[in-house]
Amino acid sequence: MDTSSQLPVALSDVYSAQVRIQPFIKKTPVLTSRRLDEILGARLIFKCENFQSTGAFKVRGAHNAVLMLNGAQASNGVVTHSSGNHAAALSLAALNCGLKAYIVMPSNASKVKIESVRRLGAEIIFCESTITAREEMASNIVKERKATLIHPYDNLAVIAGQGTAALELIEEEPDLEAVLAPVGGGGLMSGTAVVAKSVRPSIRVLATEPAQADDAYQSWRRGALISGAPPDTIADGLRTTLGQNAFTILSKLLDEFATVSEASIVEAMRLVWDVMKIVIEPSSAVPVAALLEKKFQFDGGKVGVILTGGNIDLARLPFK
Amino acid sequence: MDTSSQLPVALSDVYSAQVRIQPFIKKTPVLTSRRLDEILGARLIFKCENFQSTGAFKVRGAHNAVLMLNGAQASNGVVTHSSGNHAAALSLAALNCGLKAYIVMPSNASKVKIESVRRLGAEIIFCESTITAREEMASNIVKERKATLIHPYDNLAVIAGQGTAALELIEEEPDLEAVLAPVGGGGLMSGTAVVAKSVRPSIRVLATEPAQADDAYQSWRRGALISGAPPDTIADGLRTTLGQNAFTILSKLLDEFATVSEASIVEAMRLVWDVMKIVIEPSSAVPVAALLEKKFQFDGGKVGVILTGGNIDLARLPFK
Repeated sequence: MDTSSQLPVALSDVYSAQVRIQPFIKKTPVLTSRRLDEILGARLIFKCENFQSTGAFKVRGAHNAVLMLNGAQASNGVVTHSSGNHAAALSLAALNCGLKAYIVMPSNASKVKIESVRRLGAEIIFCESTITAREEMASNIVKERKATLIHPYDNLAVIAGQGTAALELIEEEPDLEAVLAPVGGGGLMSGTAVVAKSVRPSIRVLATEPAQADDAYQSWRRGALISGAPPDTIADGLRTTLGQNAFTILSKLLDEFATVSEASIVEAMRLVWDVMKIVIEPSSAVPVAALLEKKFQFDGGKVGVILTGGNIDLARLPFK
Repeated sequence: MDTSSQLPVALSDVYSAQVRIQPFIKKTPVLTSRRLDEILGARLIFKCENFQSTGAFKVRGAHNAVLMLNGAQASNGVVTHSSGNHAAALSLAALNCGLKAYIVMPSNASKVKIESVRRLGAEIIFCESTITAREEMASNIVKERKATLIHPYDNLAVIAGQGTAALELIEEEPDLEAVLAPVGGGGLMSGTAVVAKSVRPSIRVLATEPAQADDAYQSWRRGALISGAPPDTIADGLRTTLGQNAFTILSKLLDEFATVSEASIVEAMRLVWDVMKIVIEPSSAVPVAALLEKKFQFDGGKVGVILTGGNIDLARLPFK
């Protein structure tokens, strides 16, 4: 079954992305933990994108989008508005490909994030912290400098790039029963769904989201893209609303969707740090929280979990 | 050159230990980080014993010691006094080999540590927190129950077992210029020195220790085992004094020895968490702190660093 043939992103796009971005990204390891399996009651295979360059999967999509620009586009550079992992990812992609990158950031962004973008050679343009101010400033740069806007998730090349994480996972562990990932804008989740359902239709594709930022869950349930209240969750990577392309893909391919509490996210994050000795950010803990909350049933097969990133301010941890 | 032939532990003991303990321990991964190499000015190869069973290298020595007991000894079980990584390690070794383990712990030991030993099926005997009280209690158990005392570091089978971490590292990366490890009781450091100098004499063996717990450094410099003041350092795994066997080995084989400040240990730990996205405990950060403090010069070759463990209370982190 080639489920993806009628969808905006096909498996072939992900294979092309994999070849394209291979020189620039890490093939991240998969880790397992017998103790975590006991605690969570499942045979878990963790795809560790927290070990990816810049500390998150976002470099996959950013590199694919930058590498698909034509010569004229490339010469004018790229722009995005983000204070999170996509900002660093696009900066690195531009640096690796010899392009100029403009990053629109709110003037109240954390010093750590500003520094990491600056270290990667991007030009930072500060603006007010409202979404409107950020979008306007990015539009201005598109107009004035002819830079290409690389949207953090509602961009088909970005979605195809993010799908390479699941592709690597399934190439290494072909007999997965299910795969879990978190949903923010839906770039990773939809890329994952395209890959899983195309390579092996029996894999159940399971989405997870904080209950306090459940716009994607609500859209999926109602069959219509809603624009919910501004999401408020400790999982800062998921404080975005679902993109149109991701919605189209997830509406067709998703098997189940679970939302989780803030307390579970913190507990899950702590559990992974404690048992696996790896640093994951709150967004990465969301699928683990769904396992803690027993939101899914499994038949004893292997369950893949994409740990999306490891960027967190160590001076402001939520552990007590 | 077989430097180890006149020493209490030989390379052949470490090879035997490797075969003996192989079914019970993890072959831990080695990790590298280009960014950390830039920051620290060296080509670093990290041996990740924080991913080892029970979260520390100690299971290597504990398993080797338990597996070398004869039948009569084994039937009476093993005993140690420790509230740290050796307690969990010996408990797991006894569990894996079907032996009884008695662990003498101070009654004020943390709940987390008590629970982890209990989960591994050991019998815990509480006593006052003084060293005298703990040693006395352990002696009583040796007398009354005929259990064998497995000293956490001044035991030749333990030293040979700890040496297997360096052996795996050098088998994977044969062309190291130097290898660094921290010194507490000296079990890991002396096992590492035996392996490195026997397999490849050109490898420089570099010891590191907190300046606030520098009894091993002082003993090495003076050529006589001193018993310093009770060590006080954030690196809780190194709050022990150097053992006689380790002293004998290190006096012959060590090339250089650096001590580091408490502030550097915290900074190094944070750096590893931030950049590598792995959880290491303060003791593991000691050799990284020595690199931060530029205590050693390298000729551009690969430098192995043994990250000894990842057991730390997440509710009491030293980051600000």
